[in-house]
Amino acid sequence: MGKLYDRIRDPRLKNRVVSAEEAASWIKDGMTLGLSGFTRAGDVKAVPFALLERAKEEQIKVNIFTGASLGSDIDKVFAEAGIIHKRLPFQADSTMRKKINEGELLFVDHHLSHTAEYVRENTINPIDIAILEAISITEDGMVIPTTSIGNSLSFAKHAKAVIIEINMAQPELLEGLHDLYDPEKQGERFPIPLTTVADRIGTIGIPVDPEKVIGIVFTDQLDSPSNIVPPDHETEIMAQHLISFLRSEVKKGRLTERLAPLQSGIGSVANAVLYGMLNSEFKDLEVYSEVLQDAVFDLIDAGKVNFASCCSITLSEEKMKQVFGNFEIYRDKLIMRPQELSNHPEIIRRLGLISINTALEFDIYGNVNSTHVSGTKMMNGIGGSGDFARNARLAIFVTKSTAKNGDISSIVPFVSHVDHTEHDVDIVVTEQGYADLRGLAPRERAPLIIQNCAHPLYRDQLLAYYEEALEHGGQTPHVLEKAFSWHANYSKYGTMLEKQQNYDELRLQYSF
Amino acid sequence: MGKLYDRIRDPRLKNRVVSAEEAASWIKDGMTLGLSGFTRAGDVKAVPFALLERAKEEQIKVNIFTGASLGSDIDKVFAEAGIIHKRLPFQADSTMRKKINEGELLFVDHHLSHTAEYVRENTINPIDIAILEAISITEDGMVIPTTSIGNSLSFAKHAKAVIIEINMAQPELLEGLHDLYDPEKQGERFPIPLTTVADRIGTIGIPVDPEKVIGIVFTDQLDSPSNIVPPDHETEIMAQHLISFLRSEVKKGRLTERLAPLQSGIGSVANAVLYGMLNSEFKDLEVYSEVLQDAVFDLIDAGKVNFASCCSITLSEEKMKQVFGNFEIYRDKLIMRPQELSNHPEIIRRLGLISINTALEFDIYGNVNSTHVSGTKMMNGIGGSGDFARNARLAIFVTKSTAKNGDISSIVPFVSHVDHTEHDVDIVVTEQGYADLRGLAPRERAPLIIQNCAHPLYRDQLLAYYEEALEHGGQTPHVLEKAFSWHANYSKYGTMLEKQQNYDELRLQYSF
Repeated sequence: MGKLYDRIRDPRLKNRVVSAEEAASWIKDGMTLGLSGFTRAGDVKAVPFALLERAKEEQIKVNIFTGASLGSDIDKVFAEAGIIHKRLPFQADSTMRKKINEGELLFVDHHLSHTAEYVRENTINPIDIAILEAISITEDGMVIPTTSIGNSLSFAKHAKAVIIEINMAQPELLEGLHDLYDPEKQGERFPIPLTTVADRIGTIGIPVDPEKVIGIVFTDQLDSPSNIVPPDHETEIMAQHLISFLRSEVKKGRLTERLAPLQSGIGSVANAVLYGMLNSEFKDLEVYSEVLQDAVFDLIDAGKVNFASCCSITLSEEKMKQVFGNFEIYRDKLIMRPQELSNHPEIIRRLGLISINTALEFDIYGNVNSTHVSGTKMMNGIGGSGDFARNARLAIFVTKSTAKNGDISSIVPFVSHVDHTEHDVDIVVTEQGYADLRGLAPRERAPLIIQNCAHPLYRDQLLAYYEEALEHGGQTPHVLEKAFSWHANYSKYGTMLEKQQNYDELRLQYSF
Repeated sequence: MGKLYDRIRDPRLKNRVVSAEEAASWIKDGMTLGLSGFTRAGDVKAVPFALLERAKEEQIKVNIFTGASLGSDIDKVFAEAGIIHKRLPFQADSTMRKKINEGELLFVDHHLSHTAEYVRENTINPIDIAILEAISITEDGMVIPTTSIGNSLSFAKHAKAVIIEINMAQPELLEGLHDLYDPEKQGERFPIPLTTVADRIGTIGIPVDPEKVIGIVFTDQLDSPSNIVPPDHETEIMAQHLISFLRSEVKKGRLTERLAPLQSGIGSVANAVLYGMLNSEFKDLEVYSEVLQDAVFDLIDAGKVNFASCCSITLSEEKMKQVFGNFEIYRDKLIMRPQELSNHPEIIRRLGLISINTALEFDIYGNVNSTHVSGTKMMNGIGGSGDFARNARLAIFVTKSTAKNGDISSIVPFVSHVDHTEHDVDIVVTEQGYADLRGLAPRERAPLIIQNCAHPLYRDQLLAYYEEALEHGGQTPHVLEKAFSWHANYSKYGTMLEKQQNYDELRLQYSF
């Protein structure tokens, strides 16, 4: 136990150690919990399961607020057990998704930079208990986060009580990497003094009032590994299209070979696109992102990325071993920030990020749906994509041009849910090519998107819609009665492809 | 002429005076012109008409980039003459609107804070000639703008050549009111050092390279007066709803009676809502907005508003006489900024604005359409509403619950165009009431919006849609096939009201 207690360096807190069961016993039905955790990294791993045990015996429902998605299957088991009333601001679990879409729990999907403002202003349910994973507690009571920061600073500051899980399995070398900065109240705050990706502007831990720390629990369990799939032929081609575009920006004198700080969203496609940088001419790159996935560490290894700022580190099992087994290599190239800072519009606009996020679908005018399958069913949530896209130097959205074996076109007449409006989308990329929408009117955008990004299987069908829409006129021509007919067809017939075309032949031609 | 030349205090520029005709002769077919002017204020009034004369004799098409809408019927006559290839970022003229919707000119509708970034980064067509209205030119060559700043700083800095119109009819007392600040290039810029509404951070004029000034033209013509209509019974009720909401925020300790800096969009409804503050308990207010309309000056007169920052001053004919006839009263209570600053996300988020903008329609989940009638036809443009709504402390959208004598419901199942997503909309207000959407999941939003904001004539019909959608399930339940049926019905039958209801009786009941 000596080694354990060494991690509680503040003498005032050494007597707060409890079991997970005892900590969970303080959670009451109806409470709002603020949990650490962002994209499967740095979530608390003991108290949630102790709470789950309690919930087998008694009626308990809580609101769960986090940084983003949780690992350790917490979202899954909580959703299965039906103990969540309201969940925000992001999740990525298949069971929780199902329950959300069945209306069994309320999910509030909002910009990841906004949660801290809501908590600070007491706009949403006040946090009763913050439950935060830590590496250690410093001599002066600062809580050192682990592999993510998320909303932990905000939760700790505004919660009535705080429970800390010290995770002995998380790498101790992370201490010193975190940069905790609180912008303070709107109307009373100063400019955020960050002008380069590597700037350190805050403290290495979360200052927590020791009086509020009601319990400290020890754990010893790694984060859940990420579940991204490796690049495939199509994502490699998408990466090449993106690199061609960036190369043309360099040629036009808008960028140098150092590009601009990169942000890349969570997920396989965005990760694969970053891999494309490995064999490019671009160098001395910087990353200012929410999440660092495997690709960023490969880019650091290859000498391509000099520095990366993030809010969480989410790696595959293999990469986790490599990175945390050799962490001294990476330590001086990383900084971790609260999501309010990693996603802050002030910083994103100032640094002029190149922002790469994944779309579920986009339409012929460049509106993007990032969240809702068929306009109704939640996938994961908007996450930080809106924070970045609105203020980035380049807001880039990537998606494969088709899904479900060619039966879904990712380019549609009208997106069935809008997360990013035409005003916020600069470049769209599929394996077919890219469309640069900057400075283009809707009537210029549609033909370009159809020609450059849509799958050949769907081009004529999109053009036919657009041509019919043109007959109706307007700044943004549409045939409203048919705007969602592609989604309706998919739901009825299992395909967006119109049957009157030479369906089977076409599909064969493109080897679907 | 002595008096005229006194306005050119830089001796290097006294020899540049030309006629409007000569200045217009330098404009070539295919050029991109950057014009001063923002919401009918501070536009150039001579060179455009001289250009129009030329266009009668020769084939000429130009791109017209401005701050926002122009006065003096320039957009109208340019659109009629067919001399515009591309227009951005905002317009509000009925003829131009018609031509845009007929596809006769290209209109790029984007966030007003973004134009300067595009010009700086050379992302859109480079500005060939900036044509700017001024009060005077200082000893050191700074151009003092008139009743608006718009994008003039950006146009002047990046244009190949500059033409200045010195307007003798604009009040000289405006000199000293402007605060010109250029954030400089993304990636190389510092925090914008503005932390209160009244902070002065730049110069009183636009620094222009004298070598680039190719001509100076004298004019003597007032701005076009604003064409807003006075408050009516419904807008007065809307103002009262808004005030009730703000009052409840004060009660909850989220605001004080000083509220927070107010932003109010252009138009009659937003203006009327501001008038509601006159008889409220709120005091020592500040305004940080794009446009100051009549209401702000009445609020200053009443001692309600202490200070107002803006990008343009757009007044009715009567108010213009009163304000500019007694300008010494207002001079120390005003500051004028480029639209990149009045609309900058960094500042909006830092100050925590209360942002009030007009919606054309919103849907049962809180998505807002600000621009497109029936999803296709452009009205004016998004303007600054997105800049403000995304980062404001409170993003409020106001609209009457019906239009066209009750045949249009402004609350619909699915907005026919999305300018502001559910993620960016906090409060919606109609004459029926308000809905506070913060922290609510879609299934909480819909019943609240229908109950509080929809007109009783349409409530059952909206509920019926929502209940059918619920059967389909999802995070955001919809019946995609029927999502736009209300718009289709209006287009076919002239009303969104379903005929199977007791149509005539209902209409009588609500005195339509």
